[in-house]
Amino acid sequence: MDRNEFRSAAHAAIDDILGYFDSVPDRRVLPALEPGYLRPLIPENPPTEPETWEQIQEDVDTKIKPGLTHWQSPNFMAYYPASVTYPSILGEMYSAAFTAPAFNWLCSPACTEMETIVMDWVAKALGLPACFLSTSENLGGGVIQNSASDAIATMMVAARERRVRELVLAEGLEEGTTEYEERKMDCQPRLVAIASDQTHSSAAKGALIAGTRFRSVSTRLEENMEMTGPRLREVLEKCDKDGLVPYHLTMTFGTTNTCSVDRFAEIKAVLQEKPAWQRIWVHIDAAYAGASLVADEWQYIAKEFAEGVDSFNMNMHKWLLVNFDASVLFIRNRLDLTNALDITPTYLRNPYSDMGTVIDYRNWSISLGRRFRALKIWFVMRSYGLNGMKAHIRKTIGLGNIFADLIRGRADLFEIATKPGFCLTVFRVKNPQAQNSDSGAVCAKDEVADGITKKVYELINSRGEIFITSTVVDGVYVIRVVSANPMAEEKYVRNAFDIIVRTTEEVLQQK
Amino acid sequence: MDRNEFRSAAHAAIDDILGYFDSVPDRRVLPALEPGYLRPLIPENPPTEPETWEQIQEDVDTKIKPGLTHWQSPNFMAYYPASVTYPSILGEMYSAAFTAPAFNWLCSPACTEMETIVMDWVAKALGLPACFLSTSENLGGGVIQNSASDAIATMMVAARERRVRELVLAEGLEEGTTEYEERKMDCQPRLVAIASDQTHSSAAKGALIAGTRFRSVSTRLEENMEMTGPRLREVLEKCDKDGLVPYHLTMTFGTTNTCSVDRFAEIKAVLQEKPAWQRIWVHIDAAYAGASLVADEWQYIAKEFAEGVDSFNMNMHKWLLVNFDASVLFIRNRLDLTNALDITPTYLRNPYSDMGTVIDYRNWSISLGRRFRALKIWFVMRSYGLNGMKAHIRKTIGLGNIFADLIRGRADLFEIATKPGFCLTVFRVKNPQAQNSDSGAVCAKDEVADGITKKVYELINSRGEIFITSTVVDGVYVIRVVSANPMAEEKYVRNAFDIIVRTTEEVLQQK
Repeated sequence: MDRNEFRSAAHAAIDDILGYFDSVPDRRVLPALEPGYLRPLIPENPPTEPETWEQIQEDVDTKIKPGLTHWQSPNFMAYYPASVTYPSILGEMYSAAFTAPAFNWLCSPACTEMETIVMDWVAKALGLPACFLSTSENLGGGVIQNSASDAIATMMVAARERRVRELVLAEGLEEGTTEYEERKMDCQPRLVAIASDQTHSSAAKGALIAGTRFRSVSTRLEENMEMTGPRLREVLEKCDKDGLVPYHLTMTFGTTNTCSVDRFAEIKAVLQEKPAWQRIWVHIDAAYAGASLVADEWQYIAKEFAEGVDSFNMNMHKWLLVNFDASVLFIRNRLDLTNALDITPTYLRNPYSDMGTVIDYRNWSISLGRRFRALKIWFVMRSYGLNGMKAHIRKTIGLGNIFADLIRGRADLFEIATKPGFCLTVFRVKNPQAQNSDSGAVCAKDEVADGITKKVYELINSRGEIFITSTVVDGVYVIRVVSANPMAEEKYVRNAFDIIVRTTEEVLQQK
Repeated sequence: MDRNEFRSAAHAAIDDILGYFDSVPDRRVLPALEPGYLRPLIPENPPTEPETWEQIQEDVDTKIKPGLTHWQSPNFMAYYPASVTYPSILGEMYSAAFTAPAFNWLCSPACTEMETIVMDWVAKALGLPACFLSTSENLGGGVIQNSASDAIATMMVAARERRVRELVLAEGLEEGTTEYEERKMDCQPRLVAIASDQTHSSAAKGALIAGTRFRSVSTRLEENMEMTGPRLREVLEKCDKDGLVPYHLTMTFGTTNTCSVDRFAEIKAVLQEKPAWQRIWVHIDAAYAGASLVADEWQYIAKEFAEGVDSFNMNMHKWLLVNFDASVLFIRNRLDLTNALDITPTYLRNPYSDMGTVIDYRNWSISLGRRFRALKIWFVMRSYGLNGMKAHIRKTIGLGNIFADLIRGRADLFEIATKPGFCLTVFRVKNPQAQNSDSGAVCAKDEVADGITKKVYELINSRGEIFITSTVVDGVYVIRVVSANPMAEEKYVRNAFDIIVRTTEEVLQQK
């Protein structure tokens, strides 16, 4: 493909992409096909001779598009959203063109420096405490990670190394010695990472990757599925009793199941109760709901992170208009990261790194190389401006509130399970035979309600007009509806509600 | 930015990208600027109101491009290349447009299925043994990872879990019990990962991430910096003596410093000597040189991986025409991975995953979500065809051979340190006062030669006409020259040689 062929191919691709976005609202959200649909459509072996762009684009149209789950559809109300916007696509184009592994400053100074600057922009846009800025005296800073899972696994490793180092150095041993390695290995097996049972599975996976234990704090519907101080204390005390050393705690701002917000102030107070607990690395996982912080009215939440929090991550690629991957991670003291991950061989050295005058992001992540992802964030923040980003958050939260009100308006059919918010409503279908529960009480366990709710959920997804997810919280089967993507509109929210009501009535009549 | 604004912005970006590529050969490879150049050029805060694409693109031109290290330049001869090609950029455009975290099949069937199919294409193109195909009876398969570092860290974790599970199950304990967790934690501290001292630093970093020990096998110039069977045996025996349990071995096909190839057959024979050594997970890191396998004349090397190798990775984003990130990882038994990494909560379940009829790539990597990277690989393989890919490899290897011959032709000035190959020549400037070493003997340690070589290297890079790297092998300071990117041409190789000769003569005259 020469330059002229590329120009016309790219123009054709742009038109095709525009056409795709135009068609998205009318497409079935979930493709109606069986696993293995694609293999018979693709040759068994790669071609020997070059093929033309026309052939390739034709196949994208006829073989790929029909197999996509359309996350941009306004009828996509499952999981959490995965945004893409036009300026973000432009960022990806430039990122590809400027390809550089950029594992250190010298490998592409613009790539490193723009990341530092843009991370400071993001921290300011989210109203994060100044301790997370790269310019802070405490040596804070931000880094773009592939995903929240990578961010959390990285924090676990950094926390493990920090805790073990403290323990071994306190015994008077010197790093680099055999005795040090032995004691380090003696200490590690006692370490335990803690999170609530509503924390994203990446916390348990991160603990596994780091080779440490994991304990979870239980949550209750009566407490809105939030991690509370007293329940955390129980787990910490049990660890103490078992001779385990808690080293990492994940607190969540917007859990995966219900978007609940852990009780930060209460939890931080518990961590102050014992010196060993004060040494626990505290991470805030705000992967989804963190996006709301761009709107001033939510920034009071971020004030909680000024003290007692070591790191914070959120995914711009969920609700903040940048396409995957754009997981932003902020850390209070970057030395905690680089002390853990820096393994510098000769071929990665360069004068500026040696002098410590530059940031080498290879020591901030599991990956060595990195893409120039700061560009797409920069492009989106400039194209929208802070006001555009705030407007997006406010509009979609408003749509979520409309949906929650619609559900509340049919109290004969539905019961809200947890406090709706941040575009998410979690509810179930009532058991028509159950006695009226007191208004305000939590959903009681009810197998009949579980069965009806599951049936409604499955029927809706099998028909593919909208796509929603279900989950189980505190033993109760519930449906989640979230509408927070850039194409979301009131008419789609109302349509989703109508489908849910219609399907519920259908299921109830069958009984 | 609306659809029409996007169309014209994208057209402008395409022209700008084409203009950038046109200008690359004439740009100084390394930007001439000091750390911190960018911050004064960018506003301290994100804009409140939206900005236009014209403003943004203007800033890319005036603020970003001058700060790039131009990896696509034919004068970039440092590290290893990081390719980008037109069809790969088209792949990124579609990947962004079709954004989906795609952590399981349902989240975008096309994304998952195309990855499986394309990984089989890649395995066939590289002539890998059939055991690495997704269709193999042994349940092999490939997955795209962010980088070789991620691939290797993931393999370490899978290997650690497999080894510990074997040890604990052999004692009759049952998974999920308290006793099992205790014994697992008892076993882990004895585990040790092994690699040669020429292995990429990601092996040591992977062992660190996995929380295990790391030991390296020394290499010698007399042995062309290859890991040998006898030297590995020494390390294994020392581990046995120290009560450590080797669980993971990285063998390298194309080391970072000198592109040496470890002695696979010899090493595998050593691993057969003891039952415990047979249980070691053997990983092949072919991050750079693995690309050569598309050319038939190198595929004999891959035959070594048919037995006794658990996993293999190479980075298409180095020498194989796909832009970062496209690190392909193949595994002999995917259950080794999913047994280690699968933590399935309710909200990630779906009927097809539960039945085991689909691949859920979230259990194949540290990241949960993933981009649709199979598209760019598919586009590149189709645009080039196998013949186009082979031609690229053969052309660039030929250029490397020309360069090595040029260096050999000035035996008065230069001495080749390790066997040149795969586009890389590793050499040093001779100490003019040293006695003529016997032809064929290895570079002797020589501080004067080190000093001159370093001076030549630094002078060349400071002038920025070409960009090369240096390293130290077996105590000898050497220069590495590699020219393997898509824009490489003979005239640039000859020009680089002329610059090196000229600079060497200049440095020698100053003495």
